[in-house]
Amino acid sequence: MTLFFEHESFPQRVRFGSGQAAAMLTDEIARLGASRVMVIAAPAESALAEDVTADLPVAHHHHEVVMHVPVETAARARATAARHEIDLLVSVGGGSTTGLAKAIALTSGLPIVAVPTTYAGSEATTVWGLTEGARKTTGSAARVLPRAVIYDATLTLSLPVPMSVASGLNALAHCVDSMWGPRADPIDRALAQEGIRALRIGLPQVTANPADLDGREHALYAAYLSARAFSSAGSGLHHKICHVLGGTFDLPHAQTHAIVLPYVLAYNAPAAPEAEQQIAAAFSATDALDGLQQLRKRLNAPTALREYGLNRSDIERAVDAIVPAVPVSNPRPVTADDLRRLLDAAYSGADPASFAYGRGNKR
Amino acid sequence: MTLFFEHESFPQRVRFGSGQAAAMLTDEIARLGASRVMVIAAPAESALAEDVTADLPVAHHHHEVVMHVPVETAARARATAARHEIDLLVSVGGGSTTGLAKAIALTSGLPIVAVPTTYAGSEATTVWGLTEGARKTTGSAARVLPRAVIYDATLTLSLPVPMSVASGLNALAHCVDSMWGPRADPIDRALAQEGIRALRIGLPQVTANPADLDGREHALYAAYLSARAFSSAGSGLHHKICHVLGGTFDLPHAQTHAIVLPYVLAYNAPAAPEAEQQIAAAFSATDALDGLQQLRKRLNAPTALREYGLNRSDIERAVDAIVPAVPVSNPRPVTADDLRRLLDAAYSGADPASFAYGRGNKR
Repeated sequence: MTLFFEHESFPQRVRFGSGQAAAMLTDEIARLGASRVMVIAAPAESALAEDVTADLPVAHHHHEVVMHVPVETAARARATAARHEIDLLVSVGGGSTTGLAKAIALTSGLPIVAVPTTYAGSEATTVWGLTEGARKTTGSAARVLPRAVIYDATLTLSLPVPMSVASGLNALAHCVDSMWGPRADPIDRALAQEGIRALRIGLPQVTANPADLDGREHALYAAYLSARAFSSAGSGLHHKICHVLGGTFDLPHAQTHAIVLPYVLAYNAPAAPEAEQQIAAAFSATDALDGLQQLRKRLNAPTALREYGLNRSDIERAVDAIVPAVPVSNPRPVTADDLRRLLDAAYSGADPASFAYGRGNKR
Repeated sequence: MTLFFEHESFPQRVRFGSGQAAAMLTDEIARLGASRVMVIAAPAESALAEDVTADLPVAHHHHEVVMHVPVETAARARATAARHEIDLLVSVGGGSTTGLAKAIALTSGLPIVAVPTTYAGSEATTVWGLTEGARKTTGSAARVLPRAVIYDATLTLSLPVPMSVASGLNALAHCVDSMWGPRADPIDRALAQEGIRALRIGLPQVTANPADLDGREHALYAAYLSARAFSSAGSGLHHKICHVLGGTFDLPHAQTHAIVLPYVLAYNAPAAPEAEQQIAAAFSATDALDGLQQLRKRLNAPTALREYGLNRSDIERAVDAIVPAVPVSNPRPVTADDLRRLLDAAYSGADPASFAYGRGNKR
């Protein structure tokens, strides 16, 4: 028996159309029969939000959006929604904005229509998060999943290229790691493969011509796919490593992910031939690692952790912290020595291929 | 703008595990909190159904299953469910069995847990169908979609190899035609691509070793994917052609699909490079048509319509009937002359590649 899995699909309508946000929103709100809409958008996106929601029955515009959704912010937003007898939430913005809408839906059950302006992907998952001081609580609930998502790439044109690439490589890491996450199933892998394909097509266009819609559309579409795949599959080896590096040594999130990914791929690929083949096909390369490296080169992705604040002397501590976090689902066993070699290579920016087939212990 | 689409996801849990049907069923029924289950299975599958539902709170076993779900059959099943105060339906069988459960759910809203024993795929769609005499009515409703589907490949071991292959090639046709169906979106194409990959892996194993579970699992998994992709994308050129050939000349369904598919692929591929690339990747071939033909050869798929009752003199009538049915979404314009050449080639079994690039009029 090779196929043994569980996959859950959630109800959500996805609409994709550049320059169509306002029209698609009106359409979806009518379909959901809402008459008192609360529009949630951070001050920076408020003008944009006014714009795309102009034709909606808006009862209130809410602008208090705070990163990581503090419980106090959520409490005020919930009270506001109740006071205005809101029957539907429209979020226009990135992860924190969608996150606030989810916090309201979590307790009220109000439906959400999300209009993402970044590649965060929160709009495609049932995951919610709240922070109380330094403590972050997260959970998963079907009711917080937006009923509809409106993707309009013109809303992402203001996203600077470096941020777009960083965010795109982040989505790429979600896709690759979804191939061997703890709950990874073949459907997650298929969505992740399609996400990689879309990023391979889109990201080079975004850098070559930032005003070009085609590249932005592919990146936005890939962000949706990566979020769906990753939220279903769960964190794999790559994210466990980056979590420790970010948390313990305060390395920059995006760069850390961009640097570590090829080493994890090189390490796991020999033990996960099917995933390797799917990733290679998505890159339309004969080898998954080659495909990833070609894309990274075109995007000028960072290559060595030592350039982003990691000291060689940190590696031992990192290894100790990562070992217990390695997912049992990882296709290839991971020893402290394996991690040491992986982090050494990532620290100095050594060619991932050089150590990829170092040990043949396949599953 | 290249990405412009609408894609709807429906709530459904899919469980996949060979030999686990009974355990997974118990688990899902508990999760749905049902206490009075009606088990629907045709007489041929009744023993199997008793077996996998032994641990469930079964209030009634229903065995009147008729092909195409006649309205009278549906009426009796609905009355039976009401009389026994049923709170959940479990269907064990092929398309007609799932179809009867859907007919009951359509009017009662009762949840369904489907246990497919063929590659029909009805369990993965919101489509229902009823027949009154010769008239067939079909529709789509979210409430008829099974809440959970239990896939257990051991239940398909009794499916004879020829039927498995025919049914598998049918699923393959659904996947390929989903690439350019009237409502085809990139997510449908990704699922269809994964379905083709699974069939490429599974079908040769089913023929080589019918008792082998791995092959059956891949075919069953592909049937699920093909149903999801096709029900979202809608009938493309291939199905319009086969519908006419089957309806007007009474050609055998499975063979007609198996024969016509490579010609439609050869015709559309030059005008749909992205789809061609996705299909090729799924076959892990450099060319989509080569990949399809290699698989067809390994499966001894039929090659010429003239061997299945089509007369050359029928072609003209077929062309006239197909022309008005050609989907506007087809990547390459289709003239009567194009269809004549396509059907001539399919009639005699000529090499599809020979006429593939006959006309370069791309979109």
